[in-house]
Amino acid sequence: MGPHPAVAEIRRAVRLSLAGLPSGALVLAACSGGADSLALAACLGFAAPRMGLRAGLLTVDHGLQEGSARRAREVAELAASLGLEPAEALTVTVGRAGGPEAAAREARYEALTRAADRLGAATVLLGHTRDDQAETVLLRLSRGSGTRSLAGMPAAAGLYRRPLLGVGRRATRAACDALGLSPWEDPHNADAAYARARVRHDVLPVLERALGPGVTEALARTASLCRDDADALDAWAEEAYAACARVTGAGVELDVGGVEDLPGAVRRRVIQRAGLAAGATASALAAVHIAEVDRLVTQWRGQRVVELPGGVGVVRRYGTLVFASTLL
Amino acid sequence: MGPHPAVAEIRRAVRLSLAGLPSGALVLAACSGGADSLALAACLGFAAPRMGLRAGLLTVDHGLQEGSARRAREVAELAASLGLEPAEALTVTVGRAGGPEAAAREARYEALTRAADRLGAATVLLGHTRDDQAETVLLRLSRGSGTRSLAGMPAAAGLYRRPLLGVGRRATRAACDALGLSPWEDPHNADAAYARARVRHDVLPVLERALGPGVTEALARTASLCRDDADALDAWAEEAYAACARVTGAGVELDVGGVEDLPGAVRRRVIQRAGLAAGATASALAAVHIAEVDRLVTQWRGQRVVELPGGVGVVRRYGTLVFASTLL
Repeated sequence: MGPHPAVAEIRRAVRLSLAGLPSGALVLAACSGGADSLALAACLGFAAPRMGLRAGLLTVDHGLQEGSARRAREVAELAASLGLEPAEALTVTVGRAGGPEAAAREARYEALTRAADRLGAATVLLGHTRDDQAETVLLRLSRGSGTRSLAGMPAAAGLYRRPLLGVGRRATRAACDALGLSPWEDPHNADAAYARARVRHDVLPVLERALGPGVTEALARTASLCRDDADALDAWAEEAYAACARVTGAGVELDVGGVEDLPGAVRRRVIQRAGLAAGATASALAAVHIAEVDRLVTQWRGQRVVELPGGVGVVRRYGTLVFASTLL
Repeated sequence: MGPHPAVAEIRRAVRLSLAGLPSGALVLAACSGGADSLALAACLGFAAPRMGLRAGLLTVDHGLQEGSARRAREVAELAASLGLEPAEALTVTVGRAGGPEAAAREARYEALTRAADRLGAATVLLGHTRDDQAETVLLRLSRGSGTRSLAGMPAAAGLYRRPLLGVGRRATRAACDALGLSPWEDPHNADAAYARARVRHDVLPVLERALGPGVTEALARTASLCRDDADALDAWAEEAYAACARVTGAGVELDVGGVEDLPGAVRRRVIQRAGLAAGATASALAAVHIAEVDRLVTQWRGQRVVELPGGVGVVRRYGTLVFASTLL
């Protein structure tokens, strides 16, 4: 008798994501103790030795909930029985910048990255599922910031991989059941104060009722298509930028002749690159700023200097857009 | 005392969409009698003569509801008082193909296009608002078909223009109130059997509660950004296709060397073009088919013929992808 179908599905997804790693490499599962990352850790413990890889586990104590330290210890202790070694519980201090979710996330990734470096891990696996991806797309949609933002979470980025982006949350629960594992239920997941929890418990069920049960898959598919589209447009913009931008002592200059015939989506990406290269603040540089610079190209009628966040000014002089902090 | 702010906003939007039309051109408002298209028609009647244009009205009786013929007559009769002449009520027969919404839409556009041709109109204005655009994005999202699909409704396409895509539904109601017009409430708009009505009444309010009141604007902004992105990628794919495709007696051939280094998003668009040019059925050609052909390029290991809907086969022969119906 083979493994439960959900266990087989997750093991297959883990194996696929580990293909190509050198023999003997260390792979760590980031595990909260919840169903998604617990199933991931268990399937990593099974698959890694069969692929000539070593497998370990990291769990993070955010110190935000009663009993979180004990839970982190329990997850780390469980690791040995899953064939995961080393296993560490990392304690972090969560700040306040950007709201509670963002601050916890930042502290968590910083601790995971540091521990992975210290242990010499080749990669850290994250347990985000297709349902998480669908929630991410809906959260990003509400910002109205376009294709790159709708691309959701990448399957691989730097140190991190997400083997379960094609696996439904239902399967991780079924796998835990089948493997006799008792996942921890994060009370934050049901706490409507968190935007993601509201999307999960309020928005997605209503969307499914209104539009049919395939909505989660459709949202995840949207993310994947948008990622490919954004990658292609970024590649085009990078090439166009290289062809028409000059870095000067004062900032960056763009040939108007080199950008004016580009499609708007590419031209605005080139302008964004020039703004960032000249020192504009990435987190504050918004579509409205880019659009105002774009009008210096497409609707030129002698406008004055355009101001970008971070104290960068943009003017058009003869056939050139000049991006420089000295203009303000 | 100037006009009500909502009236001023809609008049401005109508003027903007009419800029550049030749003097004396005839512009028709498509008007159901609902608040959106009624406000549009009234503002067209005001703006057109001040721009040297003629303005008229078309209304469609779908024959699907009790009293629809009388209502269409009333809308046509109201037109004269709004300065709209000619005004016609068009009667259509709605089929069943593609479901009730799609069939009604198709019959409506066919009748509008025919009447506009007969009357010699330069353009027909449609009353879709920012809220309609947001609903469209959510409906399309549930298909998971990517950037072009998320682009929503265009502001201008062929004969048709949508001046109100940046105007909220609230403003069209306020404008009708201010102008003393009594809009008709389409019972279908509240009928949960219609997917759009479910999105409007069930999904969007929940999304706004979960993510904040800017969701409608964000969805409309997403549509606009996705449209620009899709346009740029289509332009790239068109150019790449022209460079590496050959039309033969039997179908279409693509140089593998000309497509293999393209970003995936562009390569798959080139493959889609080749498939359609070889006779594949546009409505049935889906991402899964394109992906299977794509693997002939990116994961070549001697696969057999790939079948596209419409009886087109695709094989790789030496350095060429051959698309032809003779292969099946």
